[in-house]
Amino acid sequence: MAPQAPINVGILGATGTVGQRFILLLSTHPFFKIHALGASSRSAGHPYVKAVKWKQASPIPETVREMIVQECKPEGAFKDCGVVFSGLDADVAGDIELAFRAAELAVFSNSKNHRRDPVVPLIVPLVNPSHLSIVPYQQSLQSPPLKKGFIVTNANCSTTGLVVPLAALESAFGPIEIVQVTTLQAISGAGYPGVPSLDILDNVVPYIGGEEEKIEWEAGKILGGLADDGKAFEHHATHPLTVSATCFRVPVLDGHSESVSVRFHRRPPPSPEDVVTALRAYVSEPQSLGCPSAPQQAIFVHNEPDRPQPRLDRDFQRGAGVNVGRVRKCPVLDIKFVVLANNVCIGAATSSIINAEYAVAKGVIGV
Amino acid sequence: MAPQAPINVGILGATGTVGQRFILLLSTHPFFKIHALGASSRSAGHPYVKAVKWKQASPIPETVREMIVQECKPEGAFKDCGVVFSGLDADVAGDIELAFRAAELAVFSNSKNHRRDPVVPLIVPLVNPSHLSIVPYQQSLQSPPLKKGFIVTNANCSTTGLVVPLAALESAFGPIEIVQVTTLQAISGAGYPGVPSLDILDNVVPYIGGEEEKIEWEAGKILGGLADDGKAFEHHATHPLTVSATCFRVPVLDGHSESVSVRFHRRPPPSPEDVVTALRAYVSEPQSLGCPSAPQQAIFVHNEPDRPQPRLDRDFQRGAGVNVGRVRKCPVLDIKFVVLANNVCIGAATSSIINAEYAVAKGVIGV
Amino acid sequence: MAPQAPINVGILGATGTVGQRFILLLSTHPFFKIHALGASSRSAGHPYVKAVKWKQASPIPETVREMIVQECKPEGAFKDCGVVFSGLDADVAGDIELAFRAAELAVFSNSKNHRRDPVVPLIVPLVNPSHLSIVPYQQSLQSPPLKKGFIVTNANCSTTGLVVPLAALESAFGPIEIVQVTTLQAISGAGYPGVPSLDILDNVVPYIGGEEEKIEWEAGKILGGLADDGKAFEHHATHPLTVSATCFRVPVLDGHSESVSVRFHRRPPPSPEDVVTALRAYVSEPQSLGCPSAPQQAIFVHNEPDRPQPRLDRDFQRGAGVNVGRVRKCPVLDIKFVVLANNVCIGAATSSIINAEYAVAKGVIGV
Amino acid sequence: MAPQAPINVGILGATGTVGQRFILLLSTHPFFKIHALGASSRSAGHPYVKAVKWKQASPIPETVREMIVQECKPEGAFKDCGVVFSGLDADVAGDIELAFRAAELAVFSNSKNHRRDPVVPLIVPLVNPSHLSIVPYQQSLQSPPLKKGFIVTNANCSTTGLVVPLAALESAFGPIEIVQVTTLQAISGAGYPGVPSLDILDNVVPYIGGEEEKIEWEAGKILGGLADDGKAFEHHATHPLTVSATCFRVPVLDGHSESVSVRFHRRPPPSPEDVVTALRAYVSEPQSLGCPSAPQQAIFVHNEPDRPQPRLDRDFQRGAGVNVGRVRKCPVLDIKFVVLANNVCIGAATSSIINAEYAVAKGVIGV
Repeated sequence: MAPQAPINVGILGATGTVGQRFILLLSTHPFFKIHALGASSRSAGHPYVKAVKWKQASPIPETVREMIVQECKPEGAFKDCGVVFSGLDADVAGDIELAFRAAELAVFSNSKNHRRDPVVPLIVPLVNPSHLSIVPYQQSLQSPPLKKGFIVTNANCSTTGLVVPLAALESAFGPIEIVQVTTLQAISGAGYPGVPSLDILDNVVPYIGGEEEKIEWEAGKILGGLADDGKAFEHHATHPLTVSATCFRVPVLDGHSESVSVRFHRRPPPSPEDVVTALRAYVSEPQSLGCPSAPQQAIFVHNEPDRPQPRLDRDFQRGAGVNVGRVRKCPVLDIKFVVLANNVCIGAATSSIINAEYAVAKGVIGV
Repeated sequence: MAPQAPINVGILGATGTVGQRFILLLSTHPFFKIHALGASSRSAGHPYVKAVKWKQASPIPETVREMIVQECKPEGAFKDCGVVFSGLDADVAGDIELAFRAAELAVFSNSKNHRRDPVVPLIVPLVNPSHLSIVPYQQSLQSPPLKKGFIVTNANCSTTGLVVPLAALESAFGPIEIVQVTTLQAISGAGYPGVPSLDILDNVVPYIGGEEEKIEWEAGKILGGLADDGKAFEHHATHPLTVSATCFRVPVLDGHSESVSVRFHRRPPPSPEDVVTALRAYVSEPQSLGCPSAPQQAIFVHNEPDRPQPRLDRDFQRGAGVNVGRVRKCPVLDIKFVVLANNVCIGAATSSIINAEYAVAKGVIGV
Repeated sequence: MAPQAPINVGILGATGTVGQRFILLLSTHPFFKIHALGASSRSAGHPYVKAVKWKQASPIPETVREMIVQECKPEGAFKDCGVVFSGLDADVAGDIELAFRAAELAVFSNSKNHRRDPVVPLIVPLVNPSHLSIVPYQQSLQSPPLKKGFIVTNANCSTTGLVVPLAALESAFGPIEIVQVTTLQAISGAGYPGVPSLDILDNVVPYIGGEEEKIEWEAGKILGGLADDGKAFEHHATHPLTVSATCFRVPVLDGHSESVSVRFHRRPPPSPEDVVTALRAYVSEPQSLGCPSAPQQAIFVHNEPDRPQPRLDRDFQRGAGVNVGRVRKCPVLDIKFVVLANNVCIGAATSSIINAEYAVAKGVIGV
Repeated sequence: MAPQAPINVGILGATGTVGQRFILLLSTHPFFKIHALGASSRSAGHPYVKAVKWKQASPIPETVREMIVQECKPEGAFKDCGVVFSGLDADVAGDIELAFRAAELAVFSNSKNHRRDPVVPLIVPLVNPSHLSIVPYQQSLQSPPLKKGFIVTNANCSTTGLVVPLAALESAFGPIEIVQVTTLQAISGAGYPGVPSLDILDNVVPYIGGEEEKIEWEAGKILGGLADDGKAFEHHATHPLTVSATCFRVPVLDGHSESVSVRFHRRPPPSPEDVVTALRAYVSEPQSLGCPSAPQQAIFVHNEPDRPQPRLDRDFQRGAGVNVGRVRKCPVLDIKFVVLANNVCIGAATSSIINAEYAVAKGVIGV
C-alpha cells in the first residue's frame, strides 16, 4: 500500500511526551518522513536536541537531533507536509489545529479538543476507520470549503483499549448494551511531569479528571456507525450503549489495564469460548490493507489466568495490539474479561499514524 | 465493657505476618494479655525474638521478645488461655483449630478453612457480630458436646472492606441485589515472602487465586441473617445477592481499594446524597458496646474526588475503620463508589480481636 | 524544662511540605502553640483547610483547620509569636526571614538561604546546639542592633543524618579527617510536587542539584567549633575535614540512606566494636536538657546485617533519632557504616523545633 | 569471524532467570544454535513451554517452545554441543559443571562456584578475554588431561559494571590503587522469586549477602594479568588494588548503578576531561575481532548531569555496553563517577556469550 513517494510529515507538540513518541515511531517509518517540528515559542529556533527534555529509552533519532524547531503555525516547513500529527496539550490544541486545517493541512490529532465535533471523526484504527468518509462533508462546511485540509482525531488512551475488544465482539455477536469498566491506568498517560511521585508511590489514586466521561461518551461515537447520509454519527443509537467507568491511576509506567464486564443484546449471550474465538479471529481494515504500523494480530487472548500484565505484555506487537485475558462468565452481566493496551502506542501516537496510513491507502491524502 | 480480670490469650502462627500484627495489637490491649505463642516445630522452644523474622515498623514488644514459642498444640500455656487467635496458614489451620476447639478453647481465626462450615460463624465485626449466637449450637454438635470450645472466623480481607458499606446501605435502604466489584489489593495481603518484587514492580497482576470466589460467596453469608431456629445461616436467601468480583494485585504495601457498583431492591433507589448520609451515620454493635478495638467511626466518607488513597487513608481509625469515596450514580446499576480498607488491620487481625471483645461483652467467653 | 506559659509560634510556608510537617508536630507540642500561619498571597485570607493541599497521612489538626492564613509579613498575628518557624522555599525565604528578624522575631529556618551567613548558626540539634551562643553577636551587627530578633538555621536533610554519627565519633575518638559518602535520598526531600513519577519509578537518579556541595560544606561548619572570641565559626580548621559526596534520588517515600566511610586522625583508629559502643553511648545536650522533641536515644545501632531500612526504621524515635548499621572496617579508609535518617523529621521540621526548644531552655527566647 | 558451520549449544539451568535470558539472546544468534536444554529432574522430560515459568517481556522463541528439557547431565543432546552455557544456581552448579568439563564439554558459566579456582579464568569480555589462554593448562591438570573440556566463568554482575571503566582507565593511565564503590543493585540480580516485594517497595536494603566480598576480590583477578608462565593469575600484585564496596538493593527492575571513586598510581592523576576521553576511546578485543554480541561502543559517557539512569540507559547497545556519567574530581581520592550496567545482559548472559564467541574467534572451540 506504499505511496509512490515519501510523504513529508510535521509534528505539533514535538517536545512533549506524545511528540517524542511520534518522533521515535516516524523516524523509521517506511514512507512518512519527518519534515517539520513544532513546539512552543520558547523552543522555536533551537535545534531539537536543545529544545527537548528527552525521556525515551531510545536515543533521539539522528535525523531529528539538529532539526530546527519552529512555532506551531501553518507556515514554513509545515506548508510542505502531507500530514501533520498533533500531540499538543489540550489548552492550545484547539485553535492551532483549526488554523492548520484552514491552511489546507491534514491534521491527525491525539488531543481531545475536537473529538466531540459532530463532523470530526473519532477513529480508533482497529475499530472504525470507515468514519474517515465524513471528511469531504467536514471540508464542505468550512468557509471557504477546503480541498485538502481536515481534522481526524483518535480516542483517549483508555477508551482505545476498551473499544477494540468490544468492536470484535459486536462484529461477531451483534450489539452490546451495557459495559461496566474499572481502569488501572499508567502514569505515562498523564504526560510529563504529570503525576508527582509522592502521589503514586505505594499508592493508587481513584480518580482521573474527565477520564470517566471520555470513556462513557467516546465509546458510543466510535462503536456507532455513520448516519445514512454520511453526514453525522449515529452514536450506537439503534441499540443504546450504556457505559459506566471508574478510573484509577496506578504506579505502572506504561500500559492501561481494564476490568470489563459486558451485556449483549443477543439472548442467550455467547459463551466464554465463543468470545475467545471471536476476539482471536478479529481483523481490522487497516490490517487487511497492509498499513505498516497496524499490528499483525489485533487482539491477543491469554490463556494463563494471571495475564495480561503491563510489564510483560504491553509490548505485544510493538504496542500496536491489544491484550485480553481472564475471559469468563460474569454473574451480573454476561461476560467479563481484562484488557491491557499500551497507552503510549496504540493508545496514542500509533493510532494517529495508522489513521494517517489508512487515509493514504484510501487516497484521502498523499496523492 | 472491660472484664473484671485480664484474659490470657494465645496466638497461633505467631511468627507469621498476621501473627506479628496480632502481637502488636494485643501488646497494648486493655484486657487481653498475651500468654502463649504457637508456631511451627522449627520455632518451638526458642524465644520469640529468635524465632521470628520481624517485619513490622514498630519493634517487637518487650513483653513478648523473650517469650518461648511452643508448638501449635492445645497444651502448656495454651491451656490457660481464654481466647486463642489464629493467624495460621491455610495448609495447617484446619486441623489445628479443630484440635484447639476440641480442647475447650475459644478460637478466633483469620484462616479460610472453616469459613464455609455451616455452623461456624463468619463474622465481620462491623457487620454481623450477632452471628455469634450460633456458637451454642456449634458446641452442641461436637462429640462430646463442648462447653467452652468453639471456632469463630472472620472474613477475607477484601470481603471485609466490601461488606461494611454494603451493611450500612442495607441497614438504611433495605436489600441490595447486585454488586459489581473490582479490587486493587495490596501486596501485604499475600503474606511474606508473598509476591515476588519482579512480579509487581511497574506492574499489576489481574488475578489472585481463589479471591474472587471468596468475595462472591462470603458476602452472602455475612450479609444474610440466621435462620429462624438459630441453627443455620440463610445466606441472603430472601433477596438473593449476586456478586461479581475481579481481583488485581497492585504495588501498594497496605490497603485494598475496591471499585464498587450496587443495585438496590428498592425502587427508586436512594440518591448519592442519601447514600453518603447513611454511610456516615452507620454504627455497628461493637461500637455501641464500647469494644476497645472498634473504631470510633465505622465509615469515613471523603468529599475530595481523589480520595480515599491507600497511603493517605489506610490508617484512619488505626486501620479499624473503612474509607469510602466517589459516591455517585452508576449509569448501569444504581450507585457506585470506591472503598479503601486496611487489609492488615480491619481486614485481618483487628477484626479477630473485635470479635473476641464482642464475645467477652456478650458473656460468651472470659466469664 | 517547660516554660511557665505556652509560647505562641508562627509558621512561614505553612501550606508547603515542610510547613505541613511543622503543623503536625506543633499541634501536640507541650508548650509551643500555633498562633500564626503564613503562606503566599494566593493563600492569604483563606482558612487553612481551603488554602492547603494536605498530603499527610494524619488529618489536619482541628485547631488549625479554620485558622486564617496570612501573608508572610511580620505583621498581625506574627507580632505575638515568640518563635517563627520557616519552611519557605529558597526563592523567597531569604528576604522574608530577614524582614522577620528585623522585626525582632526569632526565626528558626529550614531553608538554605542563610546557612552560609558567617554569623548565622547552622545547628543540628543533636550535634552543635552550642553554636546558638553566636546569636548576641549576630544581633549586635544589625542596624539598629536587635534585642530579640535573630535567625537560626538547621542543616540540609542529608547533612543532618551524616553529622550525627560523625559527632558521636569525634566526641569519642577525636577528629575525623576524611568522609566518603554516597546517599540514597527519598523523594519527599524534594517537596511537592517534586520528583515526577516518570523519573523515579523503576529508576534511580544519580544527581540532586546542589546537594553534594551542601553536604561537603555544611559538615565542616556544623562539626567545627566557634572561634575563641565567639564571633565566628572555625569550620573544623584545626584538623581540616574533607568530605566527598555523591547523591542519588531513589524511589523511597521518606528516609535518606547513606553509605559512609571515614578516616580518623587518631592512629590506630578505633575498632568497629569501639565505634558501635561510642555511637550507642552518645547523648546530645538537648537530650540532657529534656527538650521534649529530642529523641530518648540519639543513635540506634542495628546488629542485623540488612538494617537500617527506610520503611522499617525511619520512624525510630518518631523520626527524631538516627539509625546506623553495618559498622565494619573499610579496606580503604578506617571504618564504614550505613546511616538512615528520616528526612522529613530529624532532617527538617523536628530539628528546627528542637533548636527552638533548646533556645527556650537556654533562656534565649520565651522569657 | 563466523565459524564455517553453526555451533550447537546447550543451556544448563534453562528454566531459571539467567537461562531464560540465554534463550532469548541465543535464539537469534548468528552462529550459535540452541540444541539442548537442561534443568532439574522435575522439569526433565517436559517440553520447555510446560517446564518454564516464563518471565520475559518477549515471548518464548518458537524454536524452543516444544524442545524437551533434559536433566543436567553430560548425556543425550548435550554430547553434541560445542558450547554449554550455565545459568545454574550456585547450590548445584559446582558439581554439574565439573561433570560437563570432565565429559569434554566447553562450559561458560555465570555461576560463582569456580570463579576462585586458580586455573579457571574469570573473564569480563570487555576487559580480560586474554585470560582464556590459561585453558590448555587447566585441561592439562585434569586426570586424564582434557582435550576439549574446560570451564570459563564470567564475573558477578556488579563486578562487571565496575571493571569495564576501570580497565579503560588503567589502559590509558596505568594502575589504579584504590576504589571506593557503593552499588544500587536491581532486583533482577537476585533471580526469581528473589526479593519479596514487601522488602523492597518504598525501601532500599543496605546488604546483599556475599556481594561486597565478590566485588572486592574479583576485581583484582580480572584486572590483573597472567603470570609469566601463563599458569596462574597475578591478581594485580605489582600494584596492589584495594577495593572497598558497599552494596544496596533498590527497587529497580534491571540495571545496577554504582557510585565509584578511584585513586591512580600516577601523580598527578588524569583530569576529568582526560578520563572522559579515555573512557570514550576504549575498545576491547572482542569488539576488534567482531564478536557479534559485543557492543559497538564499550562505554558511553553521558554529559547530562543526571545520567546514567537505569530506566533510560540500561538498554544502551542492547545492554552489552556500560554507561558512565558524572565524571568529576573526588575531594578524597582522584576521580569519581557513576556507572550503570545492565545486570541481566552484560552483567550475566551476554558476557558468557561474548566469551564463547571470543573462544570461537581464537580457535579454542568450534573447530
